Amino acid sequence: MSKFWSQRTLELDPYTPGEQPKDNQYIKLNTNENPYPPSQKVQQAIIDASNDQLRLYSDPNSTDLKQSIADYYHVDTKQVFVGNGSDEVLAHAFVALLKQDDPLLFPDISYSFYPVYCQLFGIQSQKIPLDKDFSIQISNYAIKNGGIIFPNPNAPTGKALGLNSIEKMLDHNKDSVVVIDEAYVDFGAESAIALVDQYPNLLVIQTLSKSRSLAGLRVGFAVGHADLIEGLERVKNSFNSYPLATNAIAGAVASMQDTEAFEENCQKIINTREYTQIALKKLGFQTLDSRANFIFAKPPQGYSAESLYLNLKKKNILVRYFKIARINQFLRITIGTDQEMDHLIEALGELLNKTISS
Amino acid sequence: MSKFWSQRTLELDPYTPGEQPKDNQYIKLNTNENPYPPSQKVQQAIIDASNDQLRLYSDPNSTDLKQSIADYYHVDTKQVFVGNGSDEVLAHAFVALLKQDDPLLFPDISYSFYPVYCQLFGIQSQKIPLDKDFSIQISNYAIKNGGIIFPNPNAPTGKALGLNSIEKMLDHNKDSVVVIDEAYVDFGAESAIALVDQYPNLLVIQTLSKSRSLAGLRVGFAVGHADLIEGLERVKNSFNSYPLATNAIAGAVASMQDTEAFEENCQKIINTREYTQIALKKLGFQTLDSRANFIFAKPPQGYSAESLYLNLKKKNILVRYFKIARINQFLRITIGTDQEMDHLIEALGELLNKTISS
Repeated sequence: MSKFWSQRTLELDPYTPGEQPKDNQYIKLNTNENPYPPSQKVQQAIIDASNDQLRLYSDPNSTDLKQSIADYYHVDTKQVFVGNGSDEVLAHAFVALLKQDDPLLFPDISYSFYPVYCQLFGIQSQKIPLDKDFSIQISNYAIKNGGIIFPNPNAPTGKALGLNSIEKMLDHNKDSVVVIDEAYVDFGAESAIALVDQYPNLLVIQTLSKSRSLAGLRVGFAVGHADLIEGLERVKNSFNSYPLATNAIAGAVASMQDTEAFEENCQKIINTREYTQIALKKLGFQTLDSRANFIFAKPPQGYSAESLYLNLKKKNILVRYFKIARINQFLRITIGTDQEMDHLIEALGELLNKTISS
Repeated sequence: MSKFWSQRTLELDPYTPGEQPKDNQYIKLNTNENPYPPSQKVQQAIIDASNDQLRLYSDPNSTDLKQSIADYYHVDTKQVFVGNGSDEVLAHAFVALLKQDDPLLFPDISYSFYPVYCQLFGIQSQKIPLDKDFSIQISNYAIKNGGIIFPNPNAPTGKALGLNSIEKMLDHNKDSVVVIDEAYVDFGAESAIALVDQYPNLLVIQTLSKSRSLAGLRVGFAVGHADLIEGLERVKNSFNSYPLATNAIAGAVASMQDTEAFEENCQKIINTREYTQIALKKLGFQTLDSRANFIFAKPPQGYSAESLYLNLKKKNILVRYFKIARINQFLRITIGTDQEMDHLIEALGELLNKTISS
């Protein structure tokens, strides 16, 4: 603490990201990274742009990247916004669109960065409880609000809403913005980008960190009505003119264009998820229906999620554990390679047996 | 405009960066980029980090980069903060340290992003006029304030304050934070980082964009008392956990370590600046004493800076012109290579002659 901090800073309770150990001793199943590398084409594009031209500022508008995203989703470039990871895009959306007189609504169990943005930007919020089965109940959102935000699939549950439900929510909420945070959408849910031309109050945010294997490059984007995008641009241009490095733009463009590698990767992860889910159930875990690259799993009766998390760490396997009401009996397990998941299942089997025999 | 924008967004008047034309037809002397590329070592470090490991998140703490900056400036890593360009570092400093009840002070002629941050974050400010000769008069800052910020050397004047003057300002201002924005310090001014151990209210911000030829990589940093840095970290961790890409961290580390190439580059630019200043004076320009990688120059009596700017552009030479009171008769000319400056001087000579004869 310091007398020089602003009042806002004193009050902050910052976000804690998952551990990023610097050595490679761990099987990392804790931060929803992709177990497969970006394609050779993508790596080469980044390398090709890492040259003497780095002396020049990057394109402040990231025109090429907006074009490649617009091409991929068949929208206009004016409907596309880009930023330094989807966290920056989210931050700008909170300031530009979600900071209103009425409270922002989001699920009680959700991405834990949302309440942090609310603190940072002085936004009132109201948490809407998920159902008993951890589903978003859209009828609960039909109340006065200054905006709605939720991940689809939701994190850390992995459960997804269909576009029908999202349309209902949009139809009942025409006076404020609905932000759908689709960080995990490519692993089996439907993207609401299909709806942006119909709903001027819909903003969809995605990231290249997960399904496109580029967590270390820091690129995210939003798609929505051109007026919403213009609001985001105003905030971005009042914060940082050049959020994306030249070689990050180049890599992201290549990734948006390399559809084959992208789709193949996603399918592999989906297959591994299904297979892991079955294996976890055989061990007695209860799992939620995941459309993401992770599984939210509750250990069998009598076992503590927290001690399993700690014991897995001792066995050099990192998963994510949240000491938060309603979900403190769950582990969030990122989908790795088949081999990594075999190790996990073996380790969990050992831990469960050991605890039984003790 | 849109009914979905927040009130704050409606009121914003975003920053306008200098033009970044996508073709290479121009001699670019408009955005204070370095005419010399980053060294081979730096380029190679970026390439080496552009590999399959980009699938993983970057180090959220940028530990290696903080260490290399701490080593370079002989400070502790806890005194170092890093961000996505010095603009992001500035933005976080405005929120964490400069958002106070009393107004923030900065020069009337200065980096035009400062008032934009004040709008974005709801910070009251008061502009303190530069002297007639465009110097910062430190006695004018001895008034009640919630913080002070100025570039040293100042932009777009290029004039620098010595450390003696900065110490006087710090001595008279122990209750609020003084931020020195040293984007251009390596071209001939003294860094106030030498004072951070004595003054707990001093924050110094630098960038790798200019003197280190890495505008396209987006890396900036701050050095100050550990308590100030902790405040910045709180805001950063409430905004974006991973502001720097893995390969940006690697390139920045290599740059901080490659002192020889860095110093050689700076010296070349200083030499070219001195030589260009003489040539401009011969053409009748009035120039301010620059310690930066640009010259702020007033055309001879009877010539309009704006029309010279426009006519240089027609000749494929971009300089920066600000249509702002007090400085609308100046051009800000970035120092390029000797050859580029010869072209500029030749073009200016032609334009001045032509106007005389017309």
